[in-house]
Amino acid sequence: MTVTRRGPGRPSDGGDRRAVILTRAREEFADKGYAGASLRAIARSAGVDPALVHHYFGTKEQVFVAAMELPFTPAELVPQILDGPRDELGERLVRTFLGIWSHPDFRTPMLGMLRSAMTGEQGAAMLREFVGSALLGRIGAAIGPIDPLRVQAAAAQMVGVVILRHVVLLEPLASAPEDDVVALVAPTLQRYLTSPD
Amino acid sequence: MTVTRRGPGRPSDGGDRRAVILTRAREEFADKGYAGASLRAIARSAGVDPALVHHYFGTKEQVFVAAMELPFTPAELVPQILDGPRDELGERLVRTFLGIWSHPDFRTPMLGMLRSAMTGEQGAAMLREFVGSALLGRIGAAIGPIDPLRVQAAAAQMVGVVILRHVVLLEPLASAPEDDVVALVAPTLQRYLTSPD
Repeated sequence: MTVTRRGPGRPSDGGDRRAVILTRAREEFADKGYAGASLRAIARSAGVDPALVHHYFGTKEQVFVAAMELPFTPAELVPQILDGPRDELGERLVRTFLGIWSHPDFRTPMLGMLRSAMTGEQGAAMLREFVGSALLGRIGAAIGPIDPLRVQAAAAQMVGVVILRHVVLLEPLASAPEDDVVALVAPTLQRYLTSPD
Repeated sequence: MTVTRRGPGRPSDGGDRRAVILTRAREEFADKGYAGASLRAIARSAGVDPALVHHYFGTKEQVFVAAMELPFTPAELVPQILDGPRDELGERLVRTFLGIWSHPDFRTPMLGMLRSAMTGEQGAAMLREFVGSALLGRIGAAIGPIDPLRVQAAAAQMVGVVILRHVVLLEPLASAPEDDVVALVAPTLQRYLTSPD
């Protein structure tokens, strides 16, 4: 299964077909949403065999990541957050998230996704389904029985921090050292995820 | 001083001049940002006396609120949040904020402001200055010496909640009873604002 976009599954003559598949995938995700889209429909619309879509990109999640030009797959990211002492989960979560956003190569596509979610119902639907199932659902499943509302309150804290820090550029948050933000925010995430009050 | 947009300061023949002032105000705020804009420059650009701008709208903050069609002025909102027991500050803050966003008449202009901040540097600059000085600065000043980063972490939590709840429509957060969201989020705000760790 290829995880990277330029992995071994990419033949030298496949560039056009890959590009066509990604274009059709974007249309399919936009039309049907993340949950409603299927590799089969994307393949049909691109005029290729579903096995080729799988060969080039892997799972539906990986097709989505490639089509949206996201800098990571949740499948890679989530274990990295979950792996370690349970009482440092909040800290790992905020460090991973801030790390992604502080990297210009990663920030640009994330911002694009967030902006499209803010400006069109279709974008919001896609983001909602993708974040819900691929990211939050996975975290919730891994840390055990938890009210999804608590996972989403944690997600809201992080979304708000990156918006004020990286989009609105509110000072002093925009220029604060990552460690200061981690120290402030990690206990909040820890409380939401591990200490049901 | 008139606080409401259709207050006693509005003469029946003043509609055109009011509209011109608001148009010029939007241009001035867009050009100079919230901090750099002045009633004097707005008046000059609208071809009226600064006293007339003040007569129609009041302070610069009130001109901004009218020009941006915001549903409230921070000057009215903040005392409502601050008034009451200190240990319920977090709860009043999240209730006030959720209350504004749950009201369609209020949500639409707030969303417009947030979207423009997300999609253009100019919008972000205006929101940044306005939120920073008119809202967060006032709250920070009223609750005593506090690291502005803590006020902004609280703001980030609320911004994230309204984005996921009212823009991205992430379930179950989007449909959760207000009381459930308050119970979850109020302790976070309380910690940021009143218990320096």
